[in-house]
Amino acid sequence: MSVKAAIDIGKVLQPVQADLARVEAKMKSVETSLFAPLAVAFVDLIGSGGKRLRPALALMAANAGKADPAPALDSSVIALAASVEMLHTATLVHDDVIDGALLRRGAPTLNAIWNRGATVLAGNFMFARAALFAAETGNMRVIRIFSDTLETIVNGELRQLLARHNFHQVKDDYYQRIYAKTASLFCAATEAGAVLAGLPETQIQHLRSFGYNLGMAFQIVDDILDFTGDEATLGKPAGSDLAQGTLTLPFFYFLQALPAPEQLIAQMDAAVAEADAGDEQPWQALVPHLVRQVRAGPAIGAARQEAAAFLAQARTDLAALPDTRFRFAMLELCDFVVQRTY
Amino acid sequence: MSVKAAIDIGKVLQPVQADLARVEAKMKSVETSLFAPLAVAFVDLIGSGGKRLRPALALMAANAGKADPAPALDSSVIALAASVEMLHTATLVHDDVIDGALLRRGAPTLNAIWNRGATVLAGNFMFARAALFAAETGNMRVIRIFSDTLETIVNGELRQLLARHNFHQVKDDYYQRIYAKTASLFCAATEAGAVLAGLPETQIQHLRSFGYNLGMAFQIVDDILDFTGDEATLGKPAGSDLAQGTLTLPFFYFLQALPAPEQLIAQMDAAVAEADAGDEQPWQALVPHLVRQVRAGPAIGAARQEAAAFLAQARTDLAALPDTRFRFAMLELCDFVVQRTY
Repeated sequence: MSVKAAIDIGKVLQPVQADLARVEAKMKSVETSLFAPLAVAFVDLIGSGGKRLRPALALMAANAGKADPAPALDSSVIALAASVEMLHTATLVHDDVIDGALLRRGAPTLNAIWNRGATVLAGNFMFARAALFAAETGNMRVIRIFSDTLETIVNGELRQLLARHNFHQVKDDYYQRIYAKTASLFCAATEAGAVLAGLPETQIQHLRSFGYNLGMAFQIVDDILDFTGDEATLGKPAGSDLAQGTLTLPFFYFLQALPAPEQLIAQMDAAVAEADAGDEQPWQALVPHLVRQVRAGPAIGAARQEAAAFLAQARTDLAALPDTRFRFAMLELCDFVVQRTY
Repeated sequence: MSVKAAIDIGKVLQPVQADLARVEAKMKSVETSLFAPLAVAFVDLIGSGGKRLRPALALMAANAGKADPAPALDSSVIALAASVEMLHTATLVHDDVIDGALLRRGAPTLNAIWNRGATVLAGNFMFARAALFAAETGNMRVIRIFSDTLETIVNGELRQLLARHNFHQVKDDYYQRIYAKTASLFCAATEAGAVLAGLPETQIQHLRSFGYNLGMAFQIVDDILDFTGDEATLGKPAGSDLAQGTLTLPFFYFLQALPAPEQLIAQMDAAVAEADAGDEQPWQALVPHLVRQVRAGPAIGAARQEAAAFLAQARTDLAALPDTRFRFAMLELCDFVVQRTY
């Protein structure tokens, strides 16, 4: 069995590191538009972001047609990358409110109400900044991609919310959801980056497709990790999607392999009905049991194979692009996403 | 004492009625982008809107330079008007979450959590549609006005939330808030309408200024009505701004006329501190007492005079525009806003 060296994401992103720093500075430039106490809180919220994969994709795509070494990127590309990451951060901030994470047990305190209101508005402020940054690109096609993607993301979140605890959905609903929730922004970043760089339409489409396939794989791996990870790595208990009533790819494979899936679905429906009636216990007991079963069977492996298939397609999308360190970085991103599955 | 005939807002809006119907249809065209059960709920939310003053202002401004009878408006103006009203509706939807209106007493039910999440997302969906409609205008200046205004509105709401129960603010904070909350969208509508119509820059600025002054007066009158109206007309108890800890113009005039305002402020601070500590009673007793005092004194009259001054300026802004039925309608809107004060 070969052991691959762990991929250092910092090294992968190195070719766009200097421009990522410009994006970071732009995202944090709220001091003048917001009064001081809030500005500090915002910069914290923005700073607590993750690996900045989405803006990195926009920057890499904008460089993908260039000969090495690439000249400095236009400020419109920095604005695009900041817009993409700000939009992503806004949805994360609102997720807290949607999941009710801020709500204290029992009666809400004044402070909880203040927090909820401030959190909604903090997310809205980020949406506003994202729209402003998109407008700053000055490119109508990019602005349209931005607003289409915003609609797709929100529409997908609404579908996900409505689909919670509906165990009678089909696997296609899952693909729609992860496209809306994740892949749509990945491919908006690569398409818009390519558009701003003035790449030919065929290359724009290759880069868009690359973003789509990478994004689909990324979300599938995320959903796998929610089953296979432990609380220390995930920052939340394993099976949190299932606990929320959201079905993901491993679970669909698990259901598919059962001799009588309808029996399990009936059991899940009953547990949720009891939770609705006030008794959370049956549902809370069922979830960890199901997580163990999904882990033990072939479902995780099957889901991994699907992620790998999306990544293979993503690599193919890059084949037609010039052989630069930016293309190499995008190929390494594919490896990085695979690695997360193990 | 002369008694003016009541102004029929339906008649005032008549010159743009046909185009307002196009705006309404555009706002409700969510069927294809959203799945069926939600689409119905959205159309209801959108349909429950008010007088459509904001889109009407955009349409009137777009017609303001034209000779009578005006040719049909370009679809970009319809998109602008729909964008403006959708943005307004989105903020109203989020206000419910921010005020905690949806939260049941005591422990939140699953259903309350669903409602809160769906409400946040419903508002976000409307923001997304508004951004899409703004992008549809295809006009960079309009898109920039849209995103600047979105940021101003959200920033203003954050300030308002943070300023709640702070009784040591100055009157300038109030003007900043009502500009952000109301006047900014009024003047965005008139400016952007004029831009799309291709009016000369001086006329654009006159129309922007008209929107600003009308919006400031409109919000001041709204804030007066919160003191002078009764529950049947307002749909909520009088003094609801004060009850929430939000200070408005009549209250600033009331404070100003007190021989020792700092005594009252200390009393208000103490009542809010008790509410924070769990005893709402002193604050709930103080509010109706203060409402009666504000009503009885000269504060309401002083606030009315300020609204009238903003409207006088709004009329002056219109003086330089061609004498058309659209200008006449805008002048009548000024009368309509005055009338609401009585």
